[in-house]
Amino acid sequence: MESNLYLALVHYPVINKEGRVIASSITNLDLHDIARICRTYGIRRYFVVQPLRDQRKLIEELLEYWQNGYGRVYNPDRREALKLLRVVPSLSVAIEEAGKGERPLLIATEARLGMANLSFQEGRELVNSGRSVLLLFGTAWGLAPKLLRECDYILEPIKGRVDEYNHLSVRSAAAIIVDRLLGEPWWQRI
Amino acid sequence: MESNLYLALVHYPVINKEGRVIASSITNLDLHDIARICRTYGIRRYFVVQPLRDQRKLIEELLEYWQNGYGRVYNPDRREALKLLRVVPSLSVAIEEAGKGERPLLIATEARLGMANLSFQEGRELVNSGRSVLLLFGTAWGLAPKLLRECDYILEPIKGRVDEYNHLSVRSAAAIIVDRLLGEPWWQRI
Repeated sequence: MESNLYLALVHYPVINKEGRVIASSITNLDLHDIARICRTYGIRRYFVVQPLRDQRKLIEELLEYWQNGYGRVYNPDRREALKLLRVVPSLSVAIEEAGKGERPLLIATEARLGMANLSFQEGRELVNSGRSVLLLFGTAWGLAPKLLRECDYILEPIKGRVDEYNHLSVRSAAAIIVDRLLGEPWWQRI
Repeated sequence: MESNLYLALVHYPVINKEGRVIASSITNLDLHDIARICRTYGIRRYFVVQPLRDQRKLIEELLEYWQNGYGRVYNPDRREALKLLRVVPSLSVAIEEAGKGERPLLIATEARLGMANLSFQEGRELVNSGRSVLLLFGTAWGLAPKLLRECDYILEPIKGRVDEYNHLSVRSAAAIIVDRLLGEPWWQRI
């Protein structure tokens, strides 16, 4: 069953280590790993938001290789996953496509404590309600505060088991969060 | 709370696309991403099993950079995570260290259907029972059949939501599986 969930990996506006708003560079494995997560969990589209033209061109070349070049033959599973990826210059383009006429719900993810207004259970209900939802992940040190304020919800962070340490890569966070929102309810099985 | 769970990322013996047993090469982000998962979830040690000496040397250099070089200053969170990483030439070294005298339980992960004898719920109970458990992940096309037969358990695969497609990267699979085994029971909260 496909969901009405869309995912966006945001390279702008995000913050750097010092908290300044920047446009970050792409990481090759962000493209592959998150596309494969999206395909596995039935996410409708994977938007990579990248305002820098040269960076977008790089991604297009990579997609070309996996979709029409040797990569297609070498590993068709990669191709299948990367079909979901769309490179867009700004988040507004992703919002427009995800909403199909109306604005989708925007759910931001954020590793810091104290900003969340949506639990994983509530998120799971929203995502399974049929409404169009766009789930945002920030690269670098996370989504810019201004963007967080524009979102309808901020999802609670993944808690560490030992202490406050929860420094996961965006790839790992996306895997865990998508599994919690869309994965089978494995804890209910006998 | 730390667990008695140890994790091993296996580069030998694994299989290639054609099903032949090979030693695979390291992927830089496997080291970082999985170390950060281990630190976040309180896993005791992250073994990287790599029989090729040159490859082990490469990893040692990378660890040196993050632990004593500029990386230490630039990003102490990385250092904190990579402290858990041990490069070992064979799985038997990892088994010995994880067991502290007795053999730890070996749980293999495997994406293909039909081989599992351990559900996620059962795995969660085992991991929280206090027994030493070594959780194995295969690189390339997965753990070699011979190694699978030597394990006490094979954990059930992560199911795709749409169809049979479940081609996650080993990084994503590790994130999701560790979260299911050790993560907080977010589904029980009110």
